[in-house]
Amino acid sequence: MIFLARIRTLFYVFLIFSLPLSANADATYQWRLAMSWPEGTPILHNAAKRFADNVEKMSAGRMHITVDAPGRHKSALGIFDFVRIGAYEMGHTASYYYKGKDPATTFFTTMPFGMTPTELNAWYYYGGGLELLHKIYARHNIVAFPAGNTHIQMGGWFRNEIHSLADLQGLKMRIPGHAGEVVKKVGMKPVNIPPGELYTALERRTIDAVEWLGPANDEKMGFQQIAPYYYTGWHEPGAELHLFVNKTKYDALPEDLRTIIAVAAKDASLDMLSESFYYNALVWEKMQKEHGVHIRTFPTDVLQAFKQANAELLQEVAAKSPLAREVIESQRSFLKTAREWSKITDQNYLELR
Amino acid sequence: MIFLARIRTLFYVFLIFSLPLSANADATYQWRLAMSWPEGTPILHNAAKRFADNVEKMSAGRMHITVDAPGRHKSALGIFDFVRIGAYEMGHTASYYYKGKDPATTFFTTMPFGMTPTELNAWYYYGGGLELLHKIYARHNIVAFPAGNTHIQMGGWFRNEIHSLADLQGLKMRIPGHAGEVVKKVGMKPVNIPPGELYTALERRTIDAVEWLGPANDEKMGFQQIAPYYYTGWHEPGAELHLFVNKTKYDALPEDLRTIIAVAAKDASLDMLSESFYYNALVWEKMQKEHGVHIRTFPTDVLQAFKQANAELLQEVAAKSPLAREVIESQRSFLKTAREWSKITDQNYLELR
Repeated sequence: MIFLARIRTLFYVFLIFSLPLSANADATYQWRLAMSWPEGTPILHNAAKRFADNVEKMSAGRMHITVDAPGRHKSALGIFDFVRIGAYEMGHTASYYYKGKDPATTFFTTMPFGMTPTELNAWYYYGGGLELLHKIYARHNIVAFPAGNTHIQMGGWFRNEIHSLADLQGLKMRIPGHAGEVVKKVGMKPVNIPPGELYTALERRTIDAVEWLGPANDEKMGFQQIAPYYYTGWHEPGAELHLFVNKTKYDALPEDLRTIIAVAAKDASLDMLSESFYYNALVWEKMQKEHGVHIRTFPTDVLQAFKQANAELLQEVAAKSPLAREVIESQRSFLKTAREWSKITDQNYLELR
Repeated sequence: MIFLARIRTLFYVFLIFSLPLSANADATYQWRLAMSWPEGTPILHNAAKRFADNVEKMSAGRMHITVDAPGRHKSALGIFDFVRIGAYEMGHTASYYYKGKDPATTFFTTMPFGMTPTELNAWYYYGGGLELLHKIYARHNIVAFPAGNTHIQMGGWFRNEIHSLADLQGLKMRIPGHAGEVVKKVGMKPVNIPPGELYTALERRTIDAVEWLGPANDEKMGFQQIAPYYYTGWHEPGAELHLFVNKTKYDALPEDLRTIIAVAAKDASLDMLSESFYYNALVWEKMQKEHGVHIRTFPTDVLQAFKQANAELLQEVAAKSPLAREVIESQRSFLKTAREWSKITDQNYLELR
């Protein structure tokens, strides 16, 4: 019996020495991510899925992330709260949906007449943007990372051509959020209509114009069939989506998993920008061949009015929230510098090529 | 004794069941990376170091990468061979340095009048670029990944203003590689001079012009003091650097480490593009204030001549190497589509902003 006892002792000694090691290395995390995009949304769902797949592979299966669409979690614009309270450990969404929760979150996505994706990334990773993002989201128990970019969005589909600011007066347009407030200030009537009803609303002249995303997503909606004037973009020059992580749970992770999450988010950011560019370019080529789309840029007086209205709105937001002011000032200051460099590189090169 | 034997048996059974597991989980890799850049080169060394740091953190220390500069390995342009034969497991370098080894490797970095960084990434990740890169490098026992971008490079510093193609005749310019062959075809004399002697060569009129990188790196060389005409870029619209990994050793890694390497390379690509943009923008602002730099774009006849010469050279390369032809055709085909989308987004937006 004494030998049996020894065997048992040896067994437990083994357990004690082997378990803590394997507990560290093998601890697994079954996490859930709530995204704002319906199941199968081109490009956007891919970005969330790609992020989850990379985390699973890089962690050798120690972190498995289930991606839930609004069809399951029932709240496309509720991601902020889901992640804040920990109902979901993670989310994939757009920061500017939550300006009602905190106005300082608005401009991490994009800003009218603001930064291009390349400028935005320079600001995030070297111009203090990421630090501001972390500071502002920490107040809501969320760690946020840039995790996907739509590339420069188009200005929308119009039934009639716009020759001057006068042509915009009273025009009803589907254009949400901050940009909606901008066009309202210059005399338009921004309206919000569920995506599924947009085509009919445009066809029946309930609305005169609609802003959506870019060719890859717009073509499926069929707008080109009834509103032949396609305006170039000014209001969302590269909307950056974000990964949200519950801060309490993120902070409790081992360092390797924290880094894996941060780097996989950055991969998703570059990858979605690339996918957005690729499919928009392809579908734009197809659209030009198959439909008589008239590409237009808003006249100078319209753009001036948009700029003026945007500047006034930014002042209003900044006056209400010191943190929003900090974001606006940080972006404005970097853009002043970035704009001159973009002029002699991206703009000059595209013009001479 | 029989009990002792049982204890021993139990012990070995434990060893057998526990060792293979811990061998997988704890196997460590002490790898070495040879980079082409001297120790401390702004932006470029950072990209290699950032990659190594991220791999170490994401693998929880299972893969440690030592980064060696040419001061140690003695061959800035020998990275291809180092990695091919396994003298170094990894390298960080520019693919177009190795056109002598394989002409098909030339245009993975950049091409005159070719793709911007955003277009290049769309081609790599969605337009078949990465597959071509892997196919061509596999022939040399190398797995290559895009891993850093310089952003659009400047066209160089000239002592005198260029008014037409006639002004370029016989001009001696430091401009290496494929772009050097382009300018030679239109009547210039491309020369290669070690970086440390460039300033003196320009000052003593041994050369009339010099192409380097962009403001962040150029300013340190002092060119603005003696060659006040700074020309915008046409020949390297965003040079992508690459991570090289010895293929035999890469293939033998567990899947988690292979994914960690691939994703860390992509992080380095986005990060270096962001750092390049950021510091070039900052130094360009400073240069404009402190030095009387005259920014110029080459006249139309010069650009036309460069385009024509480049097209002819590409035909020559394609005629010699079917694989190079495949890369050139793939890029040309995508650029035809991408160019139209860039016109109504990046270019249009930068113009109206």
